[in-house]
Amino acid sequence: MIVIGIHRFFTSLNDLERIIRCPGRFKFEEHNVAAHSWKVSQYAMFFATLEERAGNTINWKALYEKTINHDFAEVFIGDIKTPVKHASPELKEMLAHVEEKMMEKFIREEIPPDFQEVFFERMKEGKDATIEGRLLEFADKLDQFYEAFAELKRGNTDIEFVYMYQNALAKLLLIPLDATVQYFRTEILKDAMQEDTHIDVATLTNEILNKV
Amino acid sequence: MIVIGIHRFFTSLNDLERIIRCPGRFKFEEHNVAAHSWKVSQYAMFFATLEERAGNTINWKALYEKTINHDFAEVFIGDIKTPVKHASPELKEMLAHVEEKMMEKFIREEIPPDFQEVFFERMKEGKDATIEGRLLEFADKLDQFYEAFAELKRGNTDIEFVYMYQNALAKLLLIPLDATVQYFRTEILKDAMQEDTHIDVATLTNEILNKV
Amino acid sequence: MIVIGIHRFFTSLNDLERIIRCPGRFKFEEHNVAAHSWKVSQYAMFFATLEERAGNTINWKALYEKTINHDFAEVFIGDIKTPVKHASPELKEMLAHVEEKMMEKFIREEIPPDFQEVFFERMKEGKDATIEGRLLEFADKLDQFYEAFAELKRGNTDIEFVYMYQNALAKLLLIPLDATVQYFRTEILKDAMQEDTHIDVATLTNEILNKV
Amino acid sequence: MIVIGIHRFFTSLNDLERIIRCPGRFKFEEHNVAAHSWKVSQYAMFFATLEERAGNTINWKALYEKTINHDFAEVFIGDIKTPVKHASPELKEMLAHVEEKMMEKFIREEIPPDFQEVFFERMKEGKDATIEGRLLEFADKLDQFYEAFAELKRGNTDIEFVYMYQNALAKLLLIPLDATVQYFRTEILKDAMQEDTHIDVATLTNEILNKV
Amino acid sequence: MIVIGIHRFFTSLNDLERIIRCPGRFKFEEHNVAAHSWKVSQYAMFFATLEERAGNTINWKALYEKTINHDFAEVFIGDIKTPVKHASPELKEMLAHVEEKMMEKFIREEIPPDFQEVFFERMKEGKDATIEGRLLEFADKLDQFYEAFAELKRGNTDIEFVYMYQNALAKLLLIPLDATVQYFRTEILKDAMQEDTHIDVATLTNEILNKV
Amino acid sequence: MIVIGIHRFFTSLNDLERIIRCPGRFKFEEHNVAAHSWKVSQYAMFFATLEERAGNTINWKALYEKTINHDFAEVFIGDIKTPVKHASPELKEMLAHVEEKMMEKFIREEIPPDFQEVFFERMKEGKDATIEGRLLEFADKLDQFYEAFAELKRGNTDIEFVYMYQNALAKLLLIPLDATVQYFRTEILKDAMQEDTHIDVATLTNEILNKV
Repeated sequence: MIVIGIHRFFTSLNDLERIIRCPGRFKFEEHNVAAHSWKVSQYAMFFATLEERAGNTINWKALYEKTINHDFAEVFIGDIKTPVKHASPELKEMLAHVEEKMMEKFIREEIPPDFQEVFFERMKEGKDATIEGRLLEFADKLDQFYEAFAELKRGNTDIEFVYMYQNALAKLLLIPLDATVQYFRTEILKDAMQEDTHIDVATLTNEILNKV
Repeated sequence: MIVIGIHRFFTSLNDLERIIRCPGRFKFEEHNVAAHSWKVSQYAMFFATLEERAGNTINWKALYEKTINHDFAEVFIGDIKTPVKHASPELKEMLAHVEEKMMEKFIREEIPPDFQEVFFERMKEGKDATIEGRLLEFADKLDQFYEAFAELKRGNTDIEFVYMYQNALAKLLLIPLDATVQYFRTEILKDAMQEDTHIDVATLTNEILNKV
Repeated sequence: MIVIGIHRFFTSLNDLERIIRCPGRFKFEEHNVAAHSWKVSQYAMFFATLEERAGNTINWKALYEKTINHDFAEVFIGDIKTPVKHASPELKEMLAHVEEKMMEKFIREEIPPDFQEVFFERMKEGKDATIEGRLLEFADKLDQFYEAFAELKRGNTDIEFVYMYQNALAKLLLIPLDATVQYFRTEILKDAMQEDTHIDVATLTNEILNKV
Repeated sequence: MIVIGIHRFFTSLNDLERIIRCPGRFKFEEHNVAAHSWKVSQYAMFFATLEERAGNTINWKALYEKTINHDFAEVFIGDIKTPVKHASPELKEMLAHVEEKMMEKFIREEIPPDFQEVFFERMKEGKDATIEGRLLEFADKLDQFYEAFAELKRGNTDIEFVYMYQNALAKLLLIPLDATVQYFRTEILKDAMQEDTHIDVATLTNEILNKV
Repeated sequence: MIVIGIHRFFTSLNDLERIIRCPGRFKFEEHNVAAHSWKVSQYAMFFATLEERAGNTINWKALYEKTINHDFAEVFIGDIKTPVKHASPELKEMLAHVEEKMMEKFIREEIPPDFQEVFFERMKEGKDATIEGRLLEFADKLDQFYEAFAELKRGNTDIEFVYMYQNALAKLLLIPLDATVQYFRTEILKDAMQEDTHIDVATLTNEILNKV
Repeated sequence: MIVIGIHRFFTSLNDLERIIRCPGRFKFEEHNVAAHSWKVSQYAMFFATLEERAGNTINWKALYEKTINHDFAEVFIGDIKTPVKHASPELKEMLAHVEEKMMEKFIREEIPPDFQEVFFERMKEGKDATIEGRLLEFADKLDQFYEAFAELKRGNTDIEFVYMYQNALAKLLLIPLDATVQYFRTEILKDAMQEDTHIDVATLTNEILNKV
């Protein structure tokens, strides 16, 4: 067995700069998975601070490792188009399984034995029921919210971004993080709705707020 | 059920101009799936002419419909990274199944009833055992060969393109199309090997020729 | 005389991926000639099906060869800016002549003698009075219609796209293909006018419909 | 005083996706500051693990906050060309001062009062003498090393990348982090030197190894 | 001292094609410093003609050398983000000083001794009180006006372009060039305000006209 | 007759930033016509200084106006592919004629009557037998030389750039400008040949030097 090592792992990070999110859709601005992961870490940093102030205990090490690692597996499969993920629960599960298998293969073949355990731990699915897992889920969805928001602001008329915006918003409001969701509702959304946008984001937002 | 119609089908063609082949790999030049489909049609036109001269009967309508339609399903799933496709036979089958289901859903929902049957016929998997199916397979693989060739010629040192080149070449040589493979071996490869390339393509080619 | 061969022809196809349509104009999305040729083949496939159902006989082989080959000559001259084409009938004729001469030279010098005749046949101007020639003309113009439509939808305020849209539309309505033009008028245009667009496409469309 | 709030902070993160590193130089692949920050976090995660195993105590929260925040100030000034930074110690100091002032102004004007203190703490210069500060310095320089490495590997003949590579390498070897530098020397460099590269990276590396 | 010579100077011109104006802001179209310098020369050619007709004497050689050389120093420092320039008068002065020092160093080290004097003369700050200096200032600001105008026309909702537009406009109106400013007010602005734009440029323009 | 005015002329300058030189060829770096015009002005500035020192009289106003205006007509026709220009002397003449007619039409329709004469004078073909005309020819060809040089240096294996390089070089050496050609031969070429390049530029250069 040839262990190619950490050099190989480090150069593979560069691949995520070439995986474009929402492939195949027209957008005024493209985002890559590496930059997305960074923004997710930034959002998580803010909301974890908020939750800590609200009396919750945060495992900061776990939180940041979850956010910076959460899309590493896209190195293997790319950013599957969203409709595929929703096409069938079976496929979604099968894809998750394949992702896991490919990650396992990568760690076994490329990572030196001494580090395999810590890589397995860090690279596993992060969206669990812990507060850090929920913060990851919130932050990841928030970036989808902001990507859609920016397209709508600039006047992207493709209906997919309306769905993406409203879908992300509806999910954000239901994630079990009281202080976070409260702040998002009363502060972030309020400011977002006051922006001058080509597509009427305020109306799209209120449609969801009235439902949830 | 709302049938959105052929206008929706026509605008969806544009999406394939944004699906980039080999996502996540560094390459000097990117190719989209729409342009790829056109090149595949061109290669097929040439080799079908050759096969016809060799005494075979070509169903030209079927041939061209196979080539221009063969990647339309990527509108739904994008260009899955190659390693995923090879990760497991189960996944490959499952992906093919999902692709088929999404195509079916698209045709049922977007295409006017009068045209659904002809769309089902045209959009089904084209790589069957007919001579047109084999020509599609050859032409599709030939474009992979040329994409890898161009990267190696310009000096792309990423090992994936060496694998892609040799893998495509090995498969091309085994496709059951006598006149085509013969011409490819004696004419195309000979000329390709005489080109001035940064990576030594002639040696890579001979390694495969000596094996197959 | 050095015949460089089919390998040279195949690699030249890649050049058409770098010829951008409507050079020099600001556009939200660029299109290359290879992808355009593919979309034209797709449109032609649909409308030929329609015409066949209306009782016309289609030479499918000729149709697809016309569509995939119709802009190959841009390999030699590029996409001349539209105003040049309209500047003078003399120039237009002269350019057509040069294109023809360069194609002839290419075939004589690069294509093996055995294949020269078939290349001459396939690469000649396809927009003749046959039903396949008219379908090519319709499909080619339809792509111009869709390119302009997409820019207007996204809010491109450059007046050239208004001209391009209305000009393409006016010409489409007059092409002698009854079933095709009828379907375009009653189905495609109806759906297109219902889309949410930044520039008021419905009004621009009605202006032309009222004239033709 | 108008406090625009966290929404404004979150949307400003997107600006870092448009700040390109090494502006003005020819490169085969561009990198933005957001993606760079993510890669720096990944490198730091690995080497901090190594240092912890070597018996050092890591403040993981501080480490990750340093890495994800270390270039946020480029939102205000952009990526100043390297020669400017080295032009004079006075200028370097003055630029650092301005960066600090602009950050201060941003926090006072945009961040809600409750969060100002935590933002001041997180956004301050991170490259201090703590082990986390040294790990940040190492990881930041390592990304410069890898950016230069990738250009040299692909054959970028611009001499600046040779300087950038050797300069980063020389500095990496002198950062006071025993386990990290040791691992970099014996594992990473060894693997890097075995790669097939257009520019002779092994020789460039040995020149520095023999000096330091 | 190694004098690398004019070849080095000529190849450095290419660097300015990679320096993007307004780095870090979202824009529908990017502009590089080389193209900007050319447009500035074109504007200056027109307004100098106007001023000459109004009875002023133009030193045409000085005018054109000022315009084509006025941003050459960005080769050394890049396009500093505008807010930095306005952050403090000290910094602005310091940056101007550094730019000057780097230019001096470049001329001493790269330009053959025979040509150093003429380079010093041509590359010095051009925006002086002479009519050519004022025409340069006007033309440079006019390009900022047009860059902002084009973004607003296409619907860029980022508030920075409103500031940039109004700021450039206010400054243009106050530059001491009677015939030029008069023509700009009565002809250029009148035409600009009649264009069909997404953001209401006419209102933004009138706000400034009413103030100045 | 509607005169749209100088505003229209100024906004048309932006179009030249979108006309890409050498359309359809693979290149590592693209150049637009606006930036090209600026570089040509810079080269001309240097060589005119040289010629003046050699005792020639330079009309600097004419020189700079020739260089900044010499490709303005590409606004109308785009950058015709080089092979077209060489395809037949008739076509070349016809294209020149059309360009002239379109320029005439533009000036008559868009430029206010007061300025039409000066525009006719400035926009006419600049490559005449005057020293300024020859300097324009030299500078224009020199930019082609440098564009090809940069591609060869970076390893572009497409044979067209070898032809372009050698062709430009051969023509440069024969332009009747003694001091200029002498300096180019003894200084510029000497430095260029000492650069580290992927394609062996020194050999390509010597092949031409030995012939001319």
